[in-house]
Amino acid sequence: MAPTKAPDSSRRSDRSRRAIHDAALALVTEVGYRRTTIEGIAARAGVGKQTIYRWWPSKAAVLMDAFLDLAGRTAEDAGAGDAGESGEGAQGIPDTGDLVADLKLVLRATVDELNDPALEAPTRALTAEGIVDAKLGAAFVHQLLDPQLALYVTRLRAAQEAGHVRADVDPRIALELLIGPLMHRWLLRTLPLTHAYADEIVDYAVGGLAPRP
Amino acid sequence: MAPTKAPDSSRRSDRSRRAIHDAALALVTEVGYRRTTIEGIAARAGVGKQTIYRWWPSKAAVLMDAFLDLAGRTAEDAGAGDAGESGEGAQGIPDTGDLVADLKLVLRATVDELNDPALEAPTRALTAEGIVDAKLGAAFVHQLLDPQLALYVTRLRAAQEAGHVRADVDPRIALELLIGPLMHRWLLRTLPLTHAYADEIVDYAVGGLAPRP
Repeated sequence: MAPTKAPDSSRRSDRSRRAIHDAALALVTEVGYRRTTIEGIAARAGVGKQTIYRWWPSKAAVLMDAFLDLAGRTAEDAGAGDAGESGEGAQGIPDTGDLVADLKLVLRATVDELNDPALEAPTRALTAEGIVDAKLGAAFVHQLLDPQLALYVTRLRAAQEAGHVRADVDPRIALELLIGPLMHRWLLRTLPLTHAYADEIVDYAVGGLAPRP
Repeated sequence: MAPTKAPDSSRRSDRSRRAIHDAALALVTEVGYRRTTIEGIAARAGVGKQTIYRWWPSKAAVLMDAFLDLAGRTAEDAGAGDAGESGEGAQGIPDTGDLVADLKLVLRATVDELNDPALEAPTRALTAEGIVDAKLGAAFVHQLLDPQLALYVTRLRAAQEAGHVRADVDPRIALELLIGPLMHRWLLRTLPLTHAYADEIVDYAVGGLAPRP
């Protein structure tokens, strides 16, 4: 019957996509972005290269989708664990009413993601490509980064409503005091990226550097 | 620098080095980092490629020295203009006693440097290479970035002594709240990098996001 056929082919298709994503991430880790090819990804994923060309225009697009897929899976996992605890829904930053604690939780998780050796090489490769290639960079920001930054805007707006952040602060700028230092330290490897560092960034950003009267 | 009488051969050598630096910066702007070669730099600078190989092991090393040379010239220019005004010496961040004003001045100048179209491509190229190549990245941080960050540490320590920054703040971490957001916005091109943005980052970092009691 018809209804069984579509799900099967759709499941096969999902399996192929996942295999292609995993192959792309693994290849970039092993041989670097430049030496990763569509042919290499196809061979590793066990699909024909025409399958990849049918779905994606370039290896950069494959890698971007691999990260989008990962981000989706992470959000699902987080949703399964935190459902009901968070005021912001499955994918949001928790709102326990304690801004500093909530931000430390999410920045520590970001530190763990950035320090994950399985994703370090592809994340660095995609970011570095976007830094020199404005078009790829715009896609990276639009598809991967902006949705994450929007979660900070939502949480900081809630903090403003609760009186925990000044009303004249622009949340879209304020979030860069949190994300910017972490990414700068990780990208340039200036010093180790640790939970203690994430905590201090949150404390400094929320409390300010100047003495409180 | 000191107006010592340089021998003719030393002046010729300085001229060659400067020509090689300028050729490297221009070539990366025109054809990109990957297609820039030692041969291409030599041809453009009007020197033999052996001259370059005698002084530098790689094109990355040439580019790094080009930036060090530029940084030195910028410091000299700043020194000529600001001498006597600044409590930190020619290359330091000014200390007028007004931390917020001094930081805005230096962050606005950083915005101008990052937005300089003549240097955008080589700066992006060198940074991106350092993000994927840990050894090159370490040289970039050690030679180019750390000396600049040290100026912030000095200025923030002076602010602590003056009671304008809390005594329990670590200046080496605090400076990342200023530099991190600027570099993040510039590298990823999330939003325009403007003087107004630099000002807001300084205000938020020094004053904090939370309401003052």
